Amino acid sequence: MGEQVLRLRDLSEGEVLARIFPILSDGADQDRPTGGRQRPPMLVGPGDDAAVLAAGSGSVIVTTDSMVRGKDWRDDWSSAHDVGVKLVAQNVADIAAMGGVPTGLLVSLMADPELEIAWVEDFARGIADGAADAGCPVVGGDLSSAPEGVVVLSMTALGDLGGRAPVLRSGARVGDVVAVCGSLGWSGAGLATYAAGLAEPQLSRHSSAGDHGVSLARWYHRSPRPPWESGPVAAQAGATSMLDISDGLVRDGGRIAKASGVTLDLSGELLREHFLCPPLTDAVDEDEAWRQILSGGEEHSLLATFPEGCVPADERAPWQIIGRCAAPGPDGPTLVVDGIRPEVSGWDHFHP
Amino acid sequence: MGEQVLRLRDLSEGEVLARIFPILSDGADQDRPTGGRQRPPMLVGPGDDAAVLAAGSGSVIVTTDSMVRGKDWRDDWSSAHDVGVKLVAQNVADIAAMGGVPTGLLVSLMADPELEIAWVEDFARGIADGAADAGCPVVGGDLSSAPEGVVVLSMTALGDLGGRAPVLRSGARVGDVVAVCGSLGWSGAGLATYAAGLAEPQLSRHSSAGDHGVSLARWYHRSPRPPWESGPVAAQAGATSMLDISDGLVRDGGRIAKASGVTLDLSGELLREHFLCPPLTDAVDEDEAWRQILSGGEEHSLLATFPEGCVPADERAPWQIIGRCAAPGPDGPTLVVDGIRPEVSGWDHFHP
Repeated sequence: MGEQVLRLRDLSEGEVLARIFPILSDGADQDRPTGGRQRPPMLVGPGDDAAVLAAGSGSVIVTTDSMVRGKDWRDDWSSAHDVGVKLVAQNVADIAAMGGVPTGLLVSLMADPELEIAWVEDFARGIADGAADAGCPVVGGDLSSAPEGVVVLSMTALGDLGGRAPVLRSGARVGDVVAVCGSLGWSGAGLATYAAGLAEPQLSRHSSAGDHGVSLARWYHRSPRPPWESGPVAAQAGATSMLDISDGLVRDGGRIAKASGVTLDLSGELLREHFLCPPLTDAVDEDEAWRQILSGGEEHSLLATFPEGCVPADERAPWQIIGRCAAPGPDGPTLVVDGIRPEVSGWDHFHP
Repeated sequence: MGEQVLRLRDLSEGEVLARIFPILSDGADQDRPTGGRQRPPMLVGPGDDAAVLAAGSGSVIVTTDSMVRGKDWRDDWSSAHDVGVKLVAQNVADIAAMGGVPTGLLVSLMADPELEIAWVEDFARGIADGAADAGCPVVGGDLSSAPEGVVVLSMTALGDLGGRAPVLRSGARVGDVVAVCGSLGWSGAGLATYAAGLAEPQLSRHSSAGDHGVSLARWYHRSPRPPWESGPVAAQAGATSMLDISDGLVRDGGRIAKASGVTLDLSGELLREHFLCPPLTDAVDEDEAWRQILSGGEEHSLLATFPEGCVPADERAPWQIIGRCAAPGPDGPTLVVDGIRPEVSGWDHFHP
C-alpha cells in the first residue's frame, strides 16, 4: 500500500478550503425544522474579509468556545465528526442559555500540517451536521498551521434574542423554582467508562443493559445533543436565570447562586427521581452515577430558575424541577442538596 | 532567587480570569476618540454564557483570525503585548475592509499550563490597548489548556456597517481607480531583517537611517497599526471593492481581480513613487523593498477600488492611487504591474 494518505501539507490553503466549503455549505442549505422561528438571512457568507449577518431584532448574542486535541478529546475515542458535532453543541448551548437562537457559526482550525485531510473533511461534516441541526449556517472561519501534533479548534456562535431580554445568571430570586432541561451526568459517566478502559460494547439485541448504558453515555460524551431549543422556550416562559451545565451541576449552580445572591436549595429526592436512572445507572454504578449527576461536566443541559408556576410544560424536552431558590444562609449564596453543600469539585482547565 | 515565576498551573481558572478581566475592561472604559461615530453599547459583557451587543443598524459583521506561537510570532522577537496588539489589528482590519467599524472583540487563549501569568497579563494589556485604540470593548472569550509548549490565540471581531452596504471583493468595475491606504512592505521587511539575524538597533540621535528603518519596520511587523478608520471612509466615498492586505499586494489584489472579473492594472512608477521610500528603503535594500511592496504579508493596509473621482481625500491617512481596473486579457482576471504578472507568491499557512 505505502503512504497514500493526503495531509494538510499536500494541499494549498485554497485547495483545503475548496474541499471544506462545499461540506460546510451543505449543512446551511439543509432545510431542517426551525421550530417555526424565522431564520435571519446570511447577507455575506464565507470568502470575503468578514461575514455579514442580519440582526433585525437590534442585538446580537456572541460566544466562543475551543477544543484542544489530547485535552478536550482523544482521537482513539472520538471521530473527527464527533468533535465537530460537540464543538457546535457547546457553542449553541451557550446561545440557548441566554434565551437565544443561533444565527451563525465561525470555525477555526489550527493544525499540524501532517493532519490528514480525511480528518478535516470528517470534522467539517460534523460541523455541518451540527449546524444543520441547530438551523444556522457556517459563515466564516480561519485556517492556520500549528506545531507538531497540535490540533486546536475554536468556534464562535452568534445568536438572536428575537426582541426578548437576555436571560442572565444573576436574575434568580428567593422563591423561584430551580429546573433542569436535559440529562445530567451522562457525559461524565461516558468519560469515566473510557477512563476505566472498558472495551467498546458491540451492541446487538442480546446486549446487556450495561452495554447499552455504556454505549449511550459514551455517545453523549463524544457528541452531546443538549436540548438547545428549550432555551428560548424558557426565556419566553419567564426564566429569571439560566446557564448550560459545562462544569457540573454543583459548580454551575453555584454560579447562579453567587451571581443572583440566593441559595439553590436542591432536593436529593427529586434529583434521584429524575436523573438517577437508566441509562446512566446502567453505564456506571450508583455511587458513580450520583457523583456524575452532581459534578459531571460537558453535559450542556440547561439549568434555569422560574417564578412559581412558570416552568414550561414541554413533553418532548421536559423541565424537571429539582429545588427552589432560598435566602442565603450564614455561608452566603451557594448550592445545597438536602441542606448540605456537596463535596464535589468541577472541571478546571489548568488543574484537571 | 529560585523559581518564583507564577504560571497558569499555579492559579485556578477563576483566579486567572480575575487577573485578566480588569485589564481588558480598562481598555473598554478608556474614552478614546471614535471619529464622531456612536459606539454601540455592550448590553451584556463577559462573565455570562455569552455576550450581547447592540446591532441597531440591522446587521452585524463578523470575522475571526488566529495566531500560533512559533508560526505567527516568536517570543524572542515579539512581546506578549505586541502579540495582543497584532491580534486586534488583523481582526479589526477585516471589519474595516468591509467598510465597518468594530463593535466588540472576543479573545481565546489555548495555552500550556506552564505559560507565565506575566505573559498572559501583558498579552491582555496588548489586547486592551488595541481594543481601546479601535474604540470597541472586549466582550468575551475562552481559556483552555493546551499541550506542552503550545500557545494558540484566536480572536473574533464584530462590527457595524452603520446602515451602509458591505464593500465586497467582487464589486470592482472596469475603469475604476485602484488605491491603497497605509504602508506596503513594512511588515515583510521587518520580518526579513529578523530572519537575517540583524541585532536590534539601539536607537539614539546618532543612529543611522538604516537603524531607524530596521527599528520601524520591525515595530510594524510585531504590532501593525493599519489605518482601519479609513475603511468606513472608503465605503462612504463609494468604494466598489476592498480588502486588507494580509498575504501581499499581488496575491490579495489578484483576489479582487478574480472576484470582480477585472484585471488590476498597476503602475510600477506610482508604486515606486508612493511606497519605495524611507523608512522601507532604509530598512532593506531596494530589491528587497520592491519585493516586499509586491508580496509582503501581514501589512493589513487597505486596498480598494473606486469609481473615477471618488477616491477619498484624507490627509491623515491618504489613499494613494496605484492603477486602474482594466478588462481582463487572454489570461483572465489577474493583477499586472506595467502589464506584466509579477512573479511573487504570497504566504500559505501549510507551505510557508
